[in-house]
Amino acid sequence: MKILEWTEAGIQLLDQARLPNESEFILCDTLDKICEAIRSLRIRGAPSLGVAAAYAMLLGAKKIVWVNHNAFIAELECVANVVRATRPTAVNLFWAVDQMLRAARSVPEGEQNTVLATLHERATMIECDNKERHMHLSEIGASLVQPGDSILHHCNTGPLATHERGSALGVIYAAHLQNKNIHVFVDETRPLLQGARLTCWELDQWEIPYTLITDGMAGHFMNTGKVDMVVVGADRIASNGDTANKIGTYTAAVLASHHDIPFYVAAPLTTVDFSLAGGAAIPIEERHPDEVRGYKDDIWAPEKAPVKNPAFDVTPADLIAGIITEIGIARPDYKISLAQQRDLQTGMRA
Amino acid sequence: MKILEWTEAGIQLLDQARLPNESEFILCDTLDKICEAIRSLRIRGAPSLGVAAAYAMLLGAKKIVWVNHNAFIAELECVANVVRATRPTAVNLFWAVDQMLRAARSVPEGEQNTVLATLHERATMIECDNKERHMHLSEIGASLVQPGDSILHHCNTGPLATHERGSALGVIYAAHLQNKNIHVFVDETRPLLQGARLTCWELDQWEIPYTLITDGMAGHFMNTGKVDMVVVGADRIASNGDTANKIGTYTAAVLASHHDIPFYVAAPLTTVDFSLAGGAAIPIEERHPDEVRGYKDDIWAPEKAPVKNPAFDVTPADLIAGIITEIGIARPDYKISLAQQRDLQTGMRA
Repeated sequence: MKILEWTEAGIQLLDQARLPNESEFILCDTLDKICEAIRSLRIRGAPSLGVAAAYAMLLGAKKIVWVNHNAFIAELECVANVVRATRPTAVNLFWAVDQMLRAARSVPEGEQNTVLATLHERATMIECDNKERHMHLSEIGASLVQPGDSILHHCNTGPLATHERGSALGVIYAAHLQNKNIHVFVDETRPLLQGARLTCWELDQWEIPYTLITDGMAGHFMNTGKVDMVVVGADRIASNGDTANKIGTYTAAVLASHHDIPFYVAAPLTTVDFSLAGGAAIPIEERHPDEVRGYKDDIWAPEKAPVKNPAFDVTPADLIAGIITEIGIARPDYKISLAQQRDLQTGMRA
Repeated sequence: MKILEWTEAGIQLLDQARLPNESEFILCDTLDKICEAIRSLRIRGAPSLGVAAAYAMLLGAKKIVWVNHNAFIAELECVANVVRATRPTAVNLFWAVDQMLRAARSVPEGEQNTVLATLHERATMIECDNKERHMHLSEIGASLVQPGDSILHHCNTGPLATHERGSALGVIYAAHLQNKNIHVFVDETRPLLQGARLTCWELDQWEIPYTLITDGMAGHFMNTGKVDMVVVGADRIASNGDTANKIGTYTAAVLASHHDIPFYVAAPLTTVDFSLAGGAAIPIEERHPDEVRGYKDDIWAPEKAPVKNPAFDVTPADLIAGIITEIGIARPDYKISLAQQRDLQTGMRA
């Protein structure tokens, strides 16, 4: 099943906000609709947001009334700003928008058709490239998994989040394909329950044994000796390895450290923001208080209860045993190892 | 508002499973009904369970058809077993049942009326004694709170949980009454959301400023420097200080330790089980998987998702900065300090 697909009518996507109870595809045929889908987490996960952002740019580009190339680029920059304003934390979204802008600018004195064809090609490339990165990183990460391991996972990082294969869940899936006889502890991941709703659903499809737990139970199961490894995805990684990921990740990292359980991050290099020296500079999205007061229409807290709802937290590099990318497993000092990976990739692609 | 009250018709109690949306009182006029109310968490919290168990014994006793004293005691032991079978972890429940049995046995060759009057008196004593213990411990605990402190709290430990004043929330309330200008971070406490539903409701009534967060956010707020102290209640404390409390407490304790934030337990001495050397011997209740798959009728995970649902976890004594009781603040080594408190109390009551 393809969770997001470009069609002549627009962007078809699986509405993840309704999973697992309903598997409904929706058509986003305007920029507004795809941006609403991103804001409402109908499509989510940093790598999926990259692919969605690329096609959102293409969709926006197709609606621009052609006057000349310069006017087109100016309009496309407006589209870019609209897409960028949807969600602030996942860097892949910004990366994909920039790639698309660069592609449009690269067409010299282009006509409308040439520019649109270039943008279409670039979006497809971003999609394919994303798939390839996740295939590689999941294979590389699987080498860290020992037979019989029980692995704690937070949020959702499977094909729903990454468009293909998965990052942290990709590692788990690759280990499963190697018959490593693994078991997964699934953090439900309040407030939006991506673990309970999406990760369980994906693990069911792969027939990987798992146990769903509430986020607060993670410490208990680490303490009773039932967790061998933690692996999570990332929404943005600073150049020193500090990692922004779904809220609750930092708690899992501290718990892992206390119990001497290795804590890994799995993400493609497109998730690394080399422009940031450390995690403190990563913008953290604050979402609507009702997400914490309840779930969807069911509000169980007092209706005006004061709430904080940061969607992400930052795990400092010193709690991370390794960062699994499509190039290899980066180890501390990440400032050096991630830069080396980037240079290696640039060389490979040159 | 009295959350549980003995009346001639039976036990009146506030149905906590429906809070905060509905404030409904129900009448439990049979042993079955009060036991169902305990199992379904309509009444919950270790000290409240003690009071409820005492009155459940009285209710059961009143239904026994009198033949003679020995036959009555034999029947009352059956009632005791029914009450004990409701929930396994909170020791106060077992303590209250034993107190009631002892009271019944203490009546020599009693007639029915004498035994029932004695049981009524003992249940009332347990209720009053419970109130007094919580008044003392909350005053003692408030001395630990500095002006302007932000305090993280897990589950619910206010009057709803303790019948009077509160244990951990009692400490918070007492500090508030001393105008210490405090703020509370309220862990929502999945799966049954006692924090979101009950603690927010109680803090609203007291007009104490708070912020509701999901359990996984606790680490983030400790790391961003916003938590000065953690205080929780207890369901059973072993003689060495190991503390069973609502699932997620251990996670909060590990987080506090990592951030050098003092972690306190507040509970009356009736919560200490001196018969247990350590926490490993405390029985942990495993509850229905649907509590983790969703909340009430709203199931958001796949309906057959494999689940673990331990209702409690055990925090080892070495993560606890102090145990606040009605006698004072016990400090490590708890094996010595808790025994001293017990002996002091025995002396005071002798």
